[in-house]
Amino acid sequence: MEKDLVIGIDVGGQTSKCGIVDARGTVIAQTVIRTDTCDTVGPFIAELAEALTRLIAEAHAEGRIRGIGVGAPNGNYYTGCIENAPNLKWGRERVEFAKLLSEQMNGIPVSLTNDANAAAVGEMTYGAARGMKNFIMITLGTGVGSGIVINGEVVYGHDGFAGELGHTCAVRHNGRQCGCGKYGCLEAYCSAIGVARTAREWLEMSDEPSELRSLDRITSKDVYEAAKDGDKMALKIFAFTGRILGEKLADFIEFSAPEAIVLFGGLARAKEFLTEPVLEAMNANVLPLWRNKVKLIYSSLKESDAAILGASALAWEL
Amino acid sequence: MEKDLVIGIDVGGQTSKCGIVDARGTVIAQTVIRTDTCDTVGPFIAELAEALTRLIAEAHAEGRIRGIGVGAPNGNYYTGCIENAPNLKWGRERVEFAKLLSEQMNGIPVSLTNDANAAAVGEMTYGAARGMKNFIMITLGTGVGSGIVINGEVVYGHDGFAGELGHTCAVRHNGRQCGCGKYGCLEAYCSAIGVARTAREWLEMSDEPSELRSLDRITSKDVYEAAKDGDKMALKIFAFTGRILGEKLADFIEFSAPEAIVLFGGLARAKEFLTEPVLEAMNANVLPLWRNKVKLIYSSLKESDAAILGASALAWEL
Repeated sequence: MEKDLVIGIDVGGQTSKCGIVDARGTVIAQTVIRTDTCDTVGPFIAELAEALTRLIAEAHAEGRIRGIGVGAPNGNYYTGCIENAPNLKWGRERVEFAKLLSEQMNGIPVSLTNDANAAAVGEMTYGAARGMKNFIMITLGTGVGSGIVINGEVVYGHDGFAGELGHTCAVRHNGRQCGCGKYGCLEAYCSAIGVARTAREWLEMSDEPSELRSLDRITSKDVYEAAKDGDKMALKIFAFTGRILGEKLADFIEFSAPEAIVLFGGLARAKEFLTEPVLEAMNANVLPLWRNKVKLIYSSLKESDAAILGASALAWEL
Repeated sequence: MEKDLVIGIDVGGQTSKCGIVDARGTVIAQTVIRTDTCDTVGPFIAELAEALTRLIAEAHAEGRIRGIGVGAPNGNYYTGCIENAPNLKWGRERVEFAKLLSEQMNGIPVSLTNDANAAAVGEMTYGAARGMKNFIMITLGTGVGSGIVINGEVVYGHDGFAGELGHTCAVRHNGRQCGCGKYGCLEAYCSAIGVARTAREWLEMSDEPSELRSLDRITSKDVYEAAKDGDKMALKIFAFTGRILGEKLADFIEFSAPEAIVLFGGLARAKEFLTEPVLEAMNANVLPLWRNKVKLIYSSLKESDAAILGASALAWEL
């Protein structure tokens, strides 16, 4: 039988989403399993393989799976390993994820990369970056990830870990501490967590009125809702977040001269508040030759499918 | 006859160096012509072609030239054009340099790129980066240029102008104005001109004793000589310059995860004063996974030949 399908798996800290995808990018069957109930990788891989086998049977896809693509935090494309992933209980050491999963799946080949690189491949294969050979994907989620595409290929670098733009320095002096231990990282400002931190800091430092004051534990979603209500402080928080992001995007453009920057992830939903400050700062900070020339676009993938599609796109290359 | 030789041309603001190079990277004949005596590109190309034809005859290399590689400020690899090069009298508009030169040289193919990219290709073909597939070349000259190599290929980006790391932002607020018009660029601090500016600013702002005070018009070479004499201010200037460079190198590592950073150019001669502060700042600012892992190396090409070799290396790909 022709191997005309692939599987995409998005491994997250709490859950892992799995889907069977056809060549047109349609997710024809999907399932979710918990990631955080296993303390070691063995039982997790066993559960995952069981769920995939069931999914394949339900979709009558036996013998048709060409390969499995996995997007995972700190996933290394070269080695197929997950290394030092703080958000995965079983991923704090080096785990030979691709090899273990392939063994459990009767030798179906498995390709693995980090989640942001998977998102970039997905966007290039099925989404807003289709046909583009040079773009940078920035994922604005709990953290800030990135997938860099140059000449139609994801940049993995010497060791497989290239594209950590969330940990480039946005605020050089007196910057906030980031989850990685460094200070002033882009991620400390332009992630969902960063936006919530900005809100809490600003509320504490001023007595400006804001509907955010009534909340107990502020999230980036609260800031977004407040901005939609016209709350001035919430709007200023997005203007600040967008400026910091735009300033760094200018640096990235000077590196690889992309055709477009693609924004993706939960925080990218706030595009009505981010686009203007991002573009303004980006264009003010690039060399004249790129001013107003590099596109800022948003992921066009259906959010519930995007992670699976991104990972699955890797498997076509197998 | 076998076409076993190439020509390399390094177009600079004042002079253009030309050489015939064999497959081993030996410059078997060379010459220099003035760049700044022509106001338009036509007469310059005519003079250049005449000089090359004479050089070929002297070296008995008629019929053996496989191609010509040109490194020039703002040279575009995709189009073969020099565009908006402020330091070239005839290069302020768009000039079809590769096409014009090829026509004057009886159709010998001509490949062109910017000078820093040419240096990176030269280093990869003949120099310290031989065998490396992922490295970043930083040229510390009058300005700061860069050539980025990923997977064994120079990064040109969507438009051919990628790799302008000298114009990424090193000092976000109250930065110095750069020659490009922006403020706080790496080039405004870590070029020969930047080092001289630092010296002049610091002398004005303090009354600290320094042998630099006796000089009329300070150059980066003066600062280097003073540092060799143990002058404290000169040493501090290199520590400052090195820190700024190292901080930005950390950002670049997070972009493309190179095996090494290669420093090149006049200012790189001050390596005894730069290496320590550069490495310290670079390692303090990268993610732990790259700490003390990315090499900092210096160009190994003979300086007088390096520019010609770099440009000539392009021609082998023709």
